[in-house]
Amino acid sequence: MGVETVLAIVLGISVVSLVLAFVLAREVLAAPTGKPEMQEIAAAIREGAEAFLARQYRTIGLLSIVAAAVIFGFYYVNRNVPNIAQMGHGTAWKVTVSFLTGALCSAIAGYIGMFVSIRANLRTATAAMTSLNRALQLAMRGGAVSGLSVVAMSLLGVGGLFVLFGGLHDYEHVPLQIVGFGFGASFVALFAQLGGGIYTKAADVGADLVGKVEAGIPEDDPRNPAVIADLVGDNVGDCAGRGADLFESTAAENIGAMILGIGLYPVFGMGGILFPLLARAFGLIATIVGVYLVRCREDEDPMNGLNRGYFVTTVLAMGGFAVAVYWLLKPVAGVTAAVGQGYLLGAGVIGILTAYAFVWITQYYTEYKYRPVREIAEASKTGPATNIISGIAVGFECTGLPVLVISAALLGAYWFGTMALPGVDGGGLYGTAIATMGMLAPCAYILAMDTFGPITDNAGGIIEMSKQPEEIRHKTDRLDSVGNTTKALTKGYAIGSAALAAFLLFSAYLDEVKKITGAHMAVDLTKVPVFVGGLLGATLVFVFSALAIKAVGRAAQVVIAEVRRQFKENPGIMAGTAKPDYARCVDIVTVGALRQMVLPGLLAVLAPVAVGFAFKYLGGAGAQTGAEAVAAMLMVGTIAGILLATVLNNSGGAWDNAKKYIESGAFKVDGVVMGKKSEPHKAAVVGDTVGDPFKDTAGPSLHVLIKLLSTITLVLAPLFIL
Amino acid sequence: MGVETVLAIVLGISVVSLVLAFVLAREVLAAPTGKPEMQEIAAAIREGAEAFLARQYRTIGLLSIVAAAVIFGFYYVNRNVPNIAQMGHGTAWKVTVSFLTGALCSAIAGYIGMFVSIRANLRTATAAMTSLNRALQLAMRGGAVSGLSVVAMSLLGVGGLFVLFGGLHDYEHVPLQIVGFGFGASFVALFAQLGGGIYTKAADVGADLVGKVEAGIPEDDPRNPAVIADLVGDNVGDCAGRGADLFESTAAENIGAMILGIGLYPVFGMGGILFPLLARAFGLIATIVGVYLVRCREDEDPMNGLNRGYFVTTVLAMGGFAVAVYWLLKPVAGVTAAVGQGYLLGAGVIGILTAYAFVWITQYYTEYKYRPVREIAEASKTGPATNIISGIAVGFECTGLPVLVISAALLGAYWFGTMALPGVDGGGLYGTAIATMGMLAPCAYILAMDTFGPITDNAGGIIEMSKQPEEIRHKTDRLDSVGNTTKALTKGYAIGSAALAAFLLFSAYLDEVKKITGAHMAVDLTKVPVFVGGLLGATLVFVFSALAIKAVGRAAQVVIAEVRRQFKENPGIMAGTAKPDYARCVDIVTVGALRQMVLPGLLAVLAPVAVGFAFKYLGGAGAQTGAEAVAAMLMVGTIAGILLATVLNNSGGAWDNAKKYIESGAFKVDGVVMGKKSEPHKAAVVGDTVGDPFKDTAGPSLHVLIKLLSTITLVLAPLFIL
Repeated sequence: MGVETVLAIVLGISVVSLVLAFVLAREVLAAPTGKPEMQEIAAAIREGAEAFLARQYRTIGLLSIVAAAVIFGFYYVNRNVPNIAQMGHGTAWKVTVSFLTGALCSAIAGYIGMFVSIRANLRTATAAMTSLNRALQLAMRGGAVSGLSVVAMSLLGVGGLFVLFGGLHDYEHVPLQIVGFGFGASFVALFAQLGGGIYTKAADVGADLVGKVEAGIPEDDPRNPAVIADLVGDNVGDCAGRGADLFESTAAENIGAMILGIGLYPVFGMGGILFPLLARAFGLIATIVGVYLVRCREDEDPMNGLNRGYFVTTVLAMGGFAVAVYWLLKPVAGVTAAVGQGYLLGAGVIGILTAYAFVWITQYYTEYKYRPVREIAEASKTGPATNIISGIAVGFECTGLPVLVISAALLGAYWFGTMALPGVDGGGLYGTAIATMGMLAPCAYILAMDTFGPITDNAGGIIEMSKQPEEIRHKTDRLDSVGNTTKALTKGYAIGSAALAAFLLFSAYLDEVKKITGAHMAVDLTKVPVFVGGLLGATLVFVFSALAIKAVGRAAQVVIAEVRRQFKENPGIMAGTAKPDYARCVDIVTVGALRQMVLPGLLAVLAPVAVGFAFKYLGGAGAQTGAEAVAAMLMVGTIAGILLATVLNNSGGAWDNAKKYIESGAFKVDGVVMGKKSEPHKAAVVGDTVGDPFKDTAGPSLHVLIKLLSTITLVLAPLFIL
Repeated sequence: MGVETVLAIVLGISVVSLVLAFVLAREVLAAPTGKPEMQEIAAAIREGAEAFLARQYRTIGLLSIVAAAVIFGFYYVNRNVPNIAQMGHGTAWKVTVSFLTGALCSAIAGYIGMFVSIRANLRTATAAMTSLNRALQLAMRGGAVSGLSVVAMSLLGVGGLFVLFGGLHDYEHVPLQIVGFGFGASFVALFAQLGGGIYTKAADVGADLVGKVEAGIPEDDPRNPAVIADLVGDNVGDCAGRGADLFESTAAENIGAMILGIGLYPVFGMGGILFPLLARAFGLIATIVGVYLVRCREDEDPMNGLNRGYFVTTVLAMGGFAVAVYWLLKPVAGVTAAVGQGYLLGAGVIGILTAYAFVWITQYYTEYKYRPVREIAEASKTGPATNIISGIAVGFECTGLPVLVISAALLGAYWFGTMALPGVDGGGLYGTAIATMGMLAPCAYILAMDTFGPITDNAGGIIEMSKQPEEIRHKTDRLDSVGNTTKALTKGYAIGSAALAAFLLFSAYLDEVKKITGAHMAVDLTKVPVFVGGLLGATLVFVFSALAIKAVGRAAQVVIAEVRRQFKENPGIMAGTAKPDYARCVDIVTVGALRQMVLPGLLAVLAPVAVGFAFKYLGGAGAQTGAEAVAAMLMVGTIAGILLATVLNNSGGAWDNAKKYIESGAFKVDGVVMGKKSEPHKAAVVGDTVGDPFKDTAGPSLHVLIKLLSTITLVLAPLFIL
């Protein structure tokens, strides 16, 4: 097969993708930038977003250096302890370098996504003035810059470190040494998503509460001093935050699958280790084709254009997947090669189907075409309380279908794995790993769709604030509503892939422990400390969410005070004769959000470390109580995290769209249309506001928390073993 | 020691307690019944409550008979399968009879509680017209009727079946045969709590939305046709529902501890099996003394009187516990008797302390003396949305402390157990069982305090509706507010004991599986089907809660339609010249609530059965995949249930009290008192309404769901094993 050939292809495709991302970025930047008043607003958004990111990265950079020092210290001090010593030569610095590289790449990924999106917004707005199709293409290509570079960088990072650390000769130790890359990526992603999520919702809630509720001015009204901060928020939360989130997902899952591949070395040789990288690289090519195919007629729903691109991407990715399977995965004797590889491909198809199912389920629960959102709108007739009750009930209920899908996918992929690799230890688990790879194959396209959201949202804001004509606003509204859908879909996809990938990462952790202790470790809930570990893991998810939600409230209070002060000290603002001080609001939210992200972030990082060390000595030597309790914390925490994130994301999305449904004019009570400003609409606005920190702060941060729990335990596993 | 002596003492104390419950009931019934207008209202409540219970019991009775037939069928058809055959002679009918007895006792327990409370309300209201102390005593003694009879009946049931089925000679099989008693009790409790919980909140929400919001009349206004249904609801939800809930708790935990005792037979002989019954019986005596000591000065906070009684009960129960330990539990050689028994007593003390900690934590999160509720009140300044966000954040946050307490208690009790029984298999687990027994020792007193709640709530309603003078209303308001506190405390206690007892019931299940298969079963989350079982268990908790919350909404819609109809068709009602048709409202809620309880109830019962059977064949013979997946479902479901119930109960209680805090006049904005009808108050009312189905329907039903998962798996375990 030629290990070097495979690696060359992977790295080559990655480089080509980066070049293409650059080409796309140039195309977007070269597009017309419209009228001066629009440019002025876009400039304010750009400055605010860049100022936030600069400060945020300074804070995260400091935290990362501290974390790197601690990791190096742990490994260096214990370098002669057998657990660490057997991990290979130079493990201390290799893990630390991996961590820092992962952290840096994650930060760059977030920055690139935002760099383009805060420029694509203006170009999209300008394009919308002449052609819907052109606006759609610009927004999607802007999104693709982020999607392609995130996935390409994760491949370059993982593949590059693998080569650099000598993985071609020492396949057994190197994947364990580069888990630091995944941890670094999730470490940065956690703070990026938390900080960005707090920023975006604090600005949004603050702007709404003073603007819409107290002063009675519409959303995106230029008189509101917090309105620029609100538009900045969309970029720092959805672009920078989600970019870092998906970067660490792809990185962590690549590494996890490679570690499982080590276990199957006797079966597949290097093929099993390199398969995840090649499958992902083919997915990049598929995405490039898909993105270039996105277009729509002027009178068409732009979502159709995106869906066609997604379909093509999926089909091509599947084809690439098949090539990778038949090239790299030669099954053991006992099953003819073709049949065994067919089973493995079947596991991959399960992953693809799971991605589709999640996208569909999320739409069902959050779009107003369907029952759940309409029920919430109905409940708004009797006021905000029933609106909230109904939204929470929808949130709780909507955990059911995704879990059934995931359960079926896990069991099915496991079965395919055992059929493909009969009698091979870990064969079934490799089936679930392949399903995860399948689900993540079109990942770059999904990420492009996600970044599409804030670009179109911002484009709408720029059109609105610069007071462009009604028909242009109508066009950007259509794009904006598609953007809302794609943002919701991405969250569903992210949760689904997190759920599927969780098992992959658990297994990698267990493989690592087995490598150290020489014995398979069960995670047996009937042991009291293990059960307690699980209980603490689930609780961590709830307490972390509480802190994230509270952080939004605290940061929003700061915004509210500032907006009130500006209105009071400068009456010209409301009269429209004076310009509000946007920059000060942006500054204040930045400081507030960064301060509030530290506590939940540290809790997430320190809790598993504390359990691992505290429980280490509970069971005596050889009992591995620390490692087992942390594993339970990770697994039950993942279960709780998947469920709570689903509740938070979907109830938030459903509330948002229940409000939009009422605004659309289709909602009637006794035959009378209830539109904006009606009583049901006011009730629906309450629900929408409640949902904001759910779906844009706590929910997405939980995705990262789940991955962080996995990567941190992977990195520290040797230290939890007595 | 004399097994017969111990059993005679247990059964004797139970009978004495029942007699005393009868004496207390007579005392309450003999108290003066006040003015005719008060009697009229009380009569309406009584009729409504009895009509509801009669219909509810008909439905539950039918469901129980079907369930009994299915259980008998399963056991009878498989009577020659080794798993079942080895459980002893006549297992099919013994399990079925146990089930029916448990179901019947649970129904009787609920009925007795309600019988007294719907009569004690009027007597308490009458007493309040002359003496606060007398009113307090009547309400508490009314509550004690329920507390004493529930615990006594559970002892009589478990102890009686043990003797009847020949447990004195066949200690090994009989406890496994009477697990049906626990299942029957939880089966009835689930439907009783669901039906009652849906009823009480549908009536409450319905009455409030039309009365307070639409018609603008105060709470408990006699012109509101749903007001009697609302007062009925307090009785059927809190008395009948919670009575059945705690009945099944005590029953299930007694049986679980007895099964653990079987495993320790070589160490303790019959002592270990009978210990739970004796400890509980001593707790009954302690409760009787405590209840008789309850009194307060006219100018004193009545809560002080209840707290003094609780303190005395706890101290006496602890003493009885020590006697039981030193009499029945002789430790193995290797540790001197006194030291070993000291450790066991230590585990019991941990249980008592856990109960105290839970009571304190619940108060901290739900009383307006403390930070969390005040934060919610502060958040109400900016409207209903921030009030809701803040309440949810408090709900999520408040899972932290209880879980730390439970974790410490489990680990501590486990450690005491291993110290007391060094080298004995299951010794540590027996430590946790003893801690559970310790926590449940003062259970009858707690239950009395719980029933105290609806009695004083109803007394207040009767005084309000019959328009008694202001100063009397003030007295009943004080009692009512104490009642709200005790209701919240009981829920905290119920969750704490459920968490501690969960481990006891898991262990009993594992012991049972071990008895059948001869091998210890791990519950290993690293196996895909086991992880999926856990995932499904946690999801069950969320979906069940969604259904319970939705059921309230649906049933409330029916109430709203009916009240509107009455107001429209009979304008004399609002004018005060015509009496509304209370009975029709009561009827309509009854039918609505009973219809809505079936779906969530069946889901809870069928989900574990489905997983047990569906997964049975996944792993092949000997793998016990069915039994293991169900165990994971049970354990992870319990973790999720404990957390979600804590969220729902405490956020609901905190919202309620944030509203009360604002109403108390202590809440100021910029120095101005914000009382009733202020904007923050309106926002707080929204939160209170949202919290209603959380804290009175879904939360309490989750307590029962957790226990039901345990008892159902205990009963069906032999069928899940291949």
